[in-house]
Amino acid sequence: MRPGLILKLSSPDHPGIVAKIASYVASHRGNLIEFNQFSDQLEKKFFARLEIDTSDLDVDIGDFKSGFGTLGRSLQADWHFRILPYKMKTAVLVTKTDHCLNEILLRTELNELPIEITSLIGNRDNCRPLAERSGIPFHHVEMDGPFREQGFFKIRELLSAQNVELIVLARFMQILPDDFCREYAGKIINIHHSFLPAFAGANPYRQAHERGVKLIGATCHYVTSDLDAGPIIEQEVERVHHFHSPADLARLGRHCERIALAKGIRYHVHDRTLIDGHRAIVFPD
Amino acid sequence: MRPGLILKLSSPDHPGIVAKIASYVASHRGNLIEFNQFSDQLEKKFFARLEIDTSDLDVDIGDFKSGFGTLGRSLQADWHFRILPYKMKTAVLVTKTDHCLNEILLRTELNELPIEITSLIGNRDNCRPLAERSGIPFHHVEMDGPFREQGFFKIRELLSAQNVELIVLARFMQILPDDFCREYAGKIINIHHSFLPAFAGANPYRQAHERGVKLIGATCHYVTSDLDAGPIIEQEVERVHHFHSPADLARLGRHCERIALAKGIRYHVHDRTLIDGHRAIVFPD
Amino acid sequence: MRPGLILKLSSPDHPGIVAKIASYVASHRGNLIEFNQFSDQLEKKFFARLEIDTSDLDVDIGDFKSGFGTLGRSLQADWHFRILPYKMKTAVLVTKTDHCLNEILLRTELNELPIEITSLIGNRDNCRPLAERSGIPFHHVEMDGPFREQGFFKIRELLSAQNVELIVLARFMQILPDDFCREYAGKIINIHHSFLPAFAGANPYRQAHERGVKLIGATCHYVTSDLDAGPIIEQEVERVHHFHSPADLARLGRHCERIALAKGIRYHVHDRTLIDGHRAIVFPD
Amino acid sequence: MRPGLILKLSSPDHPGIVAKIASYVASHRGNLIEFNQFSDQLEKKFFARLEIDTSDLDVDIGDFKSGFGTLGRSLQADWHFRILPYKMKTAVLVTKTDHCLNEILLRTELNELPIEITSLIGNRDNCRPLAERSGIPFHHVEMDGPFREQGFFKIRELLSAQNVELIVLARFMQILPDDFCREYAGKIINIHHSFLPAFAGANPYRQAHERGVKLIGATCHYVTSDLDAGPIIEQEVERVHHFHSPADLARLGRHCERIALAKGIRYHVHDRTLIDGHRAIVFPD
Repeated sequence: MRPGLILKLSSPDHPGIVAKIASYVASHRGNLIEFNQFSDQLEKKFFARLEIDTSDLDVDIGDFKSGFGTLGRSLQADWHFRILPYKMKTAVLVTKTDHCLNEILLRTELNELPIEITSLIGNRDNCRPLAERSGIPFHHVEMDGPFREQGFFKIRELLSAQNVELIVLARFMQILPDDFCREYAGKIINIHHSFLPAFAGANPYRQAHERGVKLIGATCHYVTSDLDAGPIIEQEVERVHHFHSPADLARLGRHCERIALAKGIRYHVHDRTLIDGHRAIVFPD
Repeated sequence: MRPGLILKLSSPDHPGIVAKIASYVASHRGNLIEFNQFSDQLEKKFFARLEIDTSDLDVDIGDFKSGFGTLGRSLQADWHFRILPYKMKTAVLVTKTDHCLNEILLRTELNELPIEITSLIGNRDNCRPLAERSGIPFHHVEMDGPFREQGFFKIRELLSAQNVELIVLARFMQILPDDFCREYAGKIINIHHSFLPAFAGANPYRQAHERGVKLIGATCHYVTSDLDAGPIIEQEVERVHHFHSPADLARLGRHCERIALAKGIRYHVHDRTLIDGHRAIVFPD
Repeated sequence: MRPGLILKLSSPDHPGIVAKIASYVASHRGNLIEFNQFSDQLEKKFFARLEIDTSDLDVDIGDFKSGFGTLGRSLQADWHFRILPYKMKTAVLVTKTDHCLNEILLRTELNELPIEITSLIGNRDNCRPLAERSGIPFHHVEMDGPFREQGFFKIRELLSAQNVELIVLARFMQILPDDFCREYAGKIINIHHSFLPAFAGANPYRQAHERGVKLIGATCHYVTSDLDAGPIIEQEVERVHHFHSPADLARLGRHCERIALAKGIRYHVHDRTLIDGHRAIVFPD
Repeated sequence: MRPGLILKLSSPDHPGIVAKIASYVASHRGNLIEFNQFSDQLEKKFFARLEIDTSDLDVDIGDFKSGFGTLGRSLQADWHFRILPYKMKTAVLVTKTDHCLNEILLRTELNELPIEITSLIGNRDNCRPLAERSGIPFHHVEMDGPFREQGFFKIRELLSAQNVELIVLARFMQILPDDFCREYAGKIINIHHSFLPAFAGANPYRQAHERGVKLIGATCHYVTSDLDAGPIIEQEVERVHHFHSPADLARLGRHCERIALAKGIRYHVHDRTLIDGHRAIVFPD
C-alpha cells in the first residue's frame, strides 16, 4: 500500500458532485490514484471511493481532512478518511475448523490483507495450535449452554480492550446477540457456507446434496441482527456433480469459503465497500 | 451422432452389476463407446448410461434389446434403450421472449441438439416471426383468464397428435396443471430465471437486485407439480455488480438462461440424465 | 440507451485532470451518469469514459462539445464525443459458419447491441439464408485465389459507400491486407478461436486436443496488421476433458466465440474501450 | 479414504475389455465403488481407473493382484494397483515463495491430500520458518552457479534415501536435469505460473500485463525434459482488468497457482491421472 489517503463517501446524488469532490482534492494538490464512484439512478444516491496520493499536498493531512467537512456537510454526505499505510486491528472468532483462519493468516503474511490480528478467540480449542504456530495469542472463551452470555461479555471486553475495528467470524458457530451486532454495525464480517439466499440456516451442504444442485457456493457478508441477511460482499461458487457426497460438498465448500472470505476482508480493509441498507456497494480490485 | 444404441439404467446396487451388464453387451459383440456409471453409496443405488457401437452385433438390435430383459429384471432395474441416430420429437412452449427459442433453433441447426421441433406453441404472438422465419409452424393458444383450462386442453391435443416426447418451456409464463406434469413426468424441461433454490417465484431479478447478490443465475430443471422444485439438470451463474440495474440483471440473466437451457436439453436428448427422486443424475459431455 | 453524450478521452496524466473534466461538465449543468477513469501509474497516462445526461444542459450539445476543445487541447488529450441514442453502422464479414452472425443478430434484436447492420459480406454463400431470413442484404464477394485482391477492393467500396464505422469479422477466414487494417484502425473487431496468445494460427482446436489442455477459449480483439496480436477486448474460456474430441472442442469453442464476440462488440459500440498501444482499456458493464 | 484397492490401467482398445475387467473383479467378490473408463476412438486406446471395495474379497489382496496379471497381459495393458488407505511419500521442492507450500500443508492437514511429506528441500532459506512451524524437516541445498550439479546430486540422494514417490515443484525456480526427469518420469508435478501454452518461459505476469490479456492462469503439469511442455493435469484462470498492475497479476496468479497445484496433486495421489504421451487423462473428483 502506498502512503496516502482513502476517502469513502455516500450522499444523496447532487449535480456536480464529482466535480466538487475532485476539485477539493486538486485544489490542495492531492493526486487521484483511483476514483471509483456510482450514481444510483434508481435511488438518487451517490457513492464514491477515492485513493489520493498526498505527497504533494499543500496542507498537512489533518488540515486537508477537516477542510473537507464544509463540502461534505453541504452534500449531506457520510464520509470517512483513512490515512495510508494502515493496518486494521482485527479479531478473528473461530470454533472448530481452521481453514478460513489459515487463509487469513497466509494472506496477511503475503501482504494481501493489511490487518493486524490482535486476538484470536475460540469457543473450542481446535484452532489453538495454528494460532500458536503463528505467534498469535489464542483466547479460549467458554460459551456452551449457561456460559453463553458471559462468553459474549468476555469477548466484548477483549475487543474493547484492544480497540478492535474489524471482527471476522471465520466459521464461528455462535449467533451474535443483537446489541453486539448493533455496536459493531458494519464491522463484523461472516462467511456463510452456502450461496445465500439459498440454503440459509444450518447444514447447507446436506440441503444442497438432497436438492441435487449443480453449483454450490459460499457468501461473505456483513453481520446484522437479521441472521444470514446482512449485506453481501462477495460470493463464490463451485460446480458439483451427482457423485459428490455431502463430504465432497463440504470439501468443495471449504474452498469457496476461503476464497469468498479472503476477498471480502480484502475489500473491507481497503475501504472498497459501502453499506447501503441491505446491499453492499463493492469496488473490487 | 454415431449409429448405435444408448442404454440407460437405474437399479438397486448389486455386486457384480457392472460385470453383468458389460458382459451382456460383449457377449453379443457390442462395442462400448462410453460407459458411465454411478454407485450411490449412501442410497445403495446404481445408475448407468452406456453408448454401444452396434456395427458388429451378432444379433439384430431388437433381439439384443429384448434379450437384455432377463438380466434387467433380475437386477430389478428400470432401463431404456434408444437406437441411434435419433431425433426427439420436441414441442417448445413460449410466451413473449424469444431468446431461449433462438438458442434452441441455432443449436439444432448446428447439430448440437438431435431434436425435431414438431410444434411451437405460444400463448402470445411475440415468437411467431422467429418461428416462421425458421419454417416451424406456430400455434397460438389463448390462455388468459377463462381460457386457461381450454388452452391447456388444446396444447395436450397438439402434443398427443404429434407424439411429442419432450416439452421445453422456453420462458413459458404459465403454471402447468398437476395432471399435465404427471402425464409427461420426466419429459418437461423448464428454464427458471434464477439460481434455485434462491429466488423461487416471480421477479427473481428484482429480488436479486434488492438483495445485492454478487452472482445471479439460471436453473434448468424437470417440471414436477411441486413448482420450481423439480430435479435440477444444469445451473449457470454470472458475476454481477452494484452498478447493474434490474434491466442489466435481466440481460445477464438471459445469457444464463440460454446456456443452462441449451445444456439441459442436450443432456436430456442424449439420454445423459437419470431422475432419482428430487435429484437428477447427469453424465455431462 | 438514454439520450445523452459519451465522452472518451486519453491523455498524459495531469494533476487535477478529473476535477477539470468533471468541472467542465458541471459548469454547463451536464449530469454524470457514469464516470470511469484509469490512471496508469506505470505509464503516467490517463483514460476516461464519461456518460453524461444532457437534459439540463445550459448550452446546445454542439456548443458543449466544441467548448470542450480548449480543455482537451490543454490536456494534450485525444477525445471523442458520441451523442446518444446512437446506432453504429456495422458491416459483418463471414465465410462459412454462422453461429457468430446469429449471436450478433439476436443481441441486436434484444437491444443489447446498438448497431445497424448495413451489410453482410461473405466470401462463401453459407450465411446467405440466415441473412435473408433476417432481412439484411447479403453480398457475396469472390475472394479465392486470383480474386483476392479485387475481392478486398469490392469490400472496401461497399464499406465506403455505406459509411461503415465498425467491421466485425465473424469467423471471416481471410487475412486482411495491411492498408485495410490501417485505414480502419481501431474499427475492426475479430473473434479468434483460441485463448490467445496460445494457439495462434490455424486449427487451434486440433492443437488444443493434442496438447491436452484443460481449458479452451476464444479471444475477441482489434485487428492490426500484426496477425492475432491486436489489442484484446474480451476472452472467454470453457473447461474441457480428455473425452472431448476435436469436434467437441469445436462445439465448446463456438460457445466461447459467441460470448466473447458479443461482449467485445458491446463494449466497443458503447464506447467502453480505449486502445493503448498493444492493449485495450475496457470499462465493462 | 476407504480401505480397498485402486486399479489404474491403459491398453489398446479391445472388444469386451470392460466386461473382462469388471468380471475379474466380480468373480472374486470385489465391489466396484467407482469405475471410470475412457475409450479413445481416435487412437484406439483404453484407459480405466477402478476403485474396489475389498471387504468381501474371496482371496487375499496379494492373490487378487497377482491373479489379475494373466488378464492384464492378454490385454497388453500397463496397470498398477494401490492398496488403500495409502499415504504417498512426497518431497516438496521450493525456492523463495511459500504460498504453494502453505496450500499443500493445509490440504494435507484437512485430509484432502493423502500424502506424507518426507522432506522439504529449498535452494533458498525463505520457506524454512513455515516448514519448521509445521514440524517438517527442511533441507537447504545450495544450487547457485557452480553448486548446481552437486545440488541436484544431493537432492537425489535425499529422495532416494526416503523412497520418495512424488516430487512436487512448488515454485522451485530451477530447471531439472534431463536424467532426473527421466528417472522420476510421471512422478514430478510442477506448477507453472501461466496458462500454458501461452507465456511459457520467465516472467509470465509481465508478459500478460504487456499483452493486456483479460484472463490469466496457472498450469499444473507433469515434468518432462521438454520444458513447460509436459502433460497438463489442471489449469485455472482468473479474470483481470486493465487496472491490475503486474503486482496485482502476481497476486491473482498466486491464487490460481495454489488451486491448480492442489487439485493436480490430489488427482495424482488418488491415481486419477493416466499419462498418454503429451496428454494426461484425468478422472476428476
